[in-house]
Amino acid sequence: MLDELLNHVKSTSEENRIVVIRSSGSVFSAGHDLKELVDSDIQGKAAVFEKCEALMKAIRLAPVPVLAAIDGLATAAGCQIVATCDLAVATRNSKFATPGVKVGLFCSTPGVPLARSVPRKVAADMLFTGQPITAEEALRSGLVSRVVRKEALDDCINEIVSDVCGVDRSVISLGKKAFYEQINLPEDEALSKSSCVMLTNLEYNAAQDGIAKFLKRK
Amino acid sequence: MLDELLNHVKSTSEENRIVVIRSSGSVFSAGHDLKELVDSDIQGKAAVFEKCEALMKAIRLAPVPVLAAIDGLATAAGCQIVATCDLAVATRNSKFATPGVKVGLFCSTPGVPLARSVPRKVAADMLFTGQPITAEEALRSGLVSRVVRKEALDDCINEIVSDVCGVDRSVISLGKKAFYEQINLPEDEALSKSSCVMLTNLEYNAAQDGIAKFLKRK
Amino acid sequence: MLDELLNHVKSTSEENRIVVIRSSGSVFSAGHDLKELVDSDIQGKAAVFEKCEALMKAIRLAPVPVLAAIDGLATAAGCQIVATCDLAVATRNSKFATPGVKVGLFCSTPGVPLARSVPRKVAADMLFTGQPITAEEALRSGLVSRVVRKEALDDCINEIVSDVCGVDRSVISLGKKAFYEQINLPEDEALSKSSCVMLTNLEYNAAQDGIAKFLKRK
Repeated sequence: MLDELLNHVKSTSEENRIVVIRSSGSVFSAGHDLKELVDSDIQGKAAVFEKCEALMKAIRLAPVPVLAAIDGLATAAGCQIVATCDLAVATRNSKFATPGVKVGLFCSTPGVPLARSVPRKVAADMLFTGQPITAEEALRSGLVSRVVRKEALDDCINEIVSDVCGVDRSVISLGKKAFYEQINLPEDEALSKSSCVMLTNLEYNAAQDGIAKFLKRK
Repeated sequence: MLDELLNHVKSTSEENRIVVIRSSGSVFSAGHDLKELVDSDIQGKAAVFEKCEALMKAIRLAPVPVLAAIDGLATAAGCQIVATCDLAVATRNSKFATPGVKVGLFCSTPGVPLARSVPRKVAADMLFTGQPITAEEALRSGLVSRVVRKEALDDCINEIVSDVCGVDRSVISLGKKAFYEQINLPEDEALSKSSCVMLTNLEYNAAQDGIAKFLKRK
Repeated sequence: MLDELLNHVKSTSEENRIVVIRSSGSVFSAGHDLKELVDSDIQGKAAVFEKCEALMKAIRLAPVPVLAAIDGLATAAGCQIVATCDLAVATRNSKFATPGVKVGLFCSTPGVPLARSVPRKVAADMLFTGQPITAEEALRSGLVSRVVRKEALDDCINEIVSDVCGVDRSVISLGKKAFYEQINLPEDEALSKSSCVMLTNLEYNAAQDGIAKFLKRK
C-alpha cells in the first residue's frame, strides 16, 4: 500500500489539483505491517523506512495540496501521514495514536511531523503512553483543522476540493512551496523571502485576472 | 493607512507604555488596496511590500507591547498584523482570513507570522482554501489569547493596558526583546541567555522596589 | 527545594521508570524564593539561576519521562518546571502564571519552555500581563495534555505511570532522547535521523519480544 500511495502522490499530473487520501474501511491506516518488518533482514527493514520517508517527502513536494480525510483509526505511520499532509479533516469518531511503545518500538518517525503539528506535551503524551487521542482532541491540538459528523465528511472534503480547485494550480503550487520554505527560516528572512514570492505571484496571469475580476465586482 | 500605522508604531515615546491597534468600523483591516497594488509598476509594488515588512518589524522592535483588538473582520495583511502583534484579543463575532487564493494571490507574507502563531494545519487550511476562521477557532488555535462579547471589548483592552502600565517600561522592554530573541535559539542556549537577562533585570530599580514591596506585603 | 528536586531527577537509577513531580499542598510551586534572591550578592543570584537551569537540563536529559502533576498553583519557575517536563496533567482548579512583571522581574527563563509549549500569543499574554490561565486554558493551549477532577488525579497519574512502566526502559530512553534531538533539526534531517533510531530500536530485545507477542495475539 505504501508503494501505491507513493506512486499516487508522486504522479500528480498537470490536471491534478489536489490529492485526497482517505480510507474505505474503519481504519484510515494502522501503519507498517509489523510482520513484514520483523521478518526482513536489515536491508529490508531499512528499505521500509526509506520508502516511508520517500512518501512523506513526496507529500511535502507535491505541487498540489494533499488532504487526509480520516474516518476511523489512524495509528503509527498512519498518524504520521495525517501529520505530514498539508490538510487534514476527520469524522467525530476518528482516533489518532502513536502506540509503538506498546510493542517496544517507539514511534520516532511519526513523532517528527507530530511534534511539528501539535503542542509538544500532546505529542509526548501520545508517544510515551501510546494512548490515542479523539477527533475532538486532534482538533483542539491542531492535528486536523476540521471535524465533522460521519455523514458530513463527503461535503467537508468537497468544500475543500472545490475551494482548492477554484484557484489556479500555479498559484497553489507557488504558495505551497513558499509556505514550507519559510517555516524553517528566521522570521525576518522568511518575511523578506515571502515578499519576493508575492511580487512574483502578482505577475501570474491568474493573479492579474483574479484581481481584475474582484475589482469589477466591487 | 499603512504609513499612518507605521509612524504610530515607530514613534513610541518614553511616555508610551503600550500600542493598541483597533478599528472603528466592522472591519479591523482588509489588507492591501488591491487596486493600488495592480496599478503600480514593479517598483511601486515592491514598495508596498517593503512598507508592509517595515510595519511588521516595527511591531516586533517596538519597546512596548503592541496589542491588536479585533472587532470584525481581519483579512490578508490585516490578519498578518494580528498574527505579528505581541498580544491579540477579539470579539466573538470577529473573523480572520487569508483569502488571497480567491483572487489568485497566495497570502505568502501573512503566512509567515500565521505559521508561527497557530498550528500548521490551521494555517494551511486558511491559506489553501481562503476560508475564514471564527473568533472561537482563533482562540482555540492561539491566534488570539482572549475572546469576549462585543460589549466587553473595552474592559478587556483596559485590563491588559492596566496590567502592562503597572509594570515599569524598562522591564517590559527588556522582557519583550529577550522573548523574541530566545524563541529562535536552541533551547539550552535560550535558557542560558534568559538567565543572564533575569540577572540584569534583578539590578533594575523597578525589580528591587517591586520585590521589596512584595516581601513587605507578605 | 530546588536542590532536592535536582537530586531527585538526576539520581534516577535503573529501577526508576518515571519521575512524577507533584505537590502535597494547594501550591504546586511558586518558583524562586524572592527574599533569598534579592538578599544574595551577584554570585549568589547567578548560582540560583544556574541551579534552575541545571534542573531543567536534568529533566530533559533524564532517561525516563518526567511527569508534572499539578493540583493548585504553578507560577514563575514553578510554571517553568511544568513547561519543561515531558508530560503534564492538572486538576480543574489548577492555575498557571508567569507573574514576574508584577514585581518588576520579567519571567524570561520560564518564557523559554513556555514559548515552546503553547501558542506564542498565549505565552506573551501570560508574560506581559502576569495574569494566570486556568487548567482549561492550559489544556487548550497545550501546556498540559490532560485535565481531570481533583478526585481523579491519582487515577490519571496511575494510568500514565502504568502505561510508561509497561514499556521497556531502554525503549523509552531511546525514544525520549531522539524526540528532543529531532525537534530542533530541519524536518527532512529529523526524519532521516529518526528512521535510523527506529532501525536501532527494532534490534532491541524489547521490540522483538513485543512485536512477536503482538503478532501471536492477532
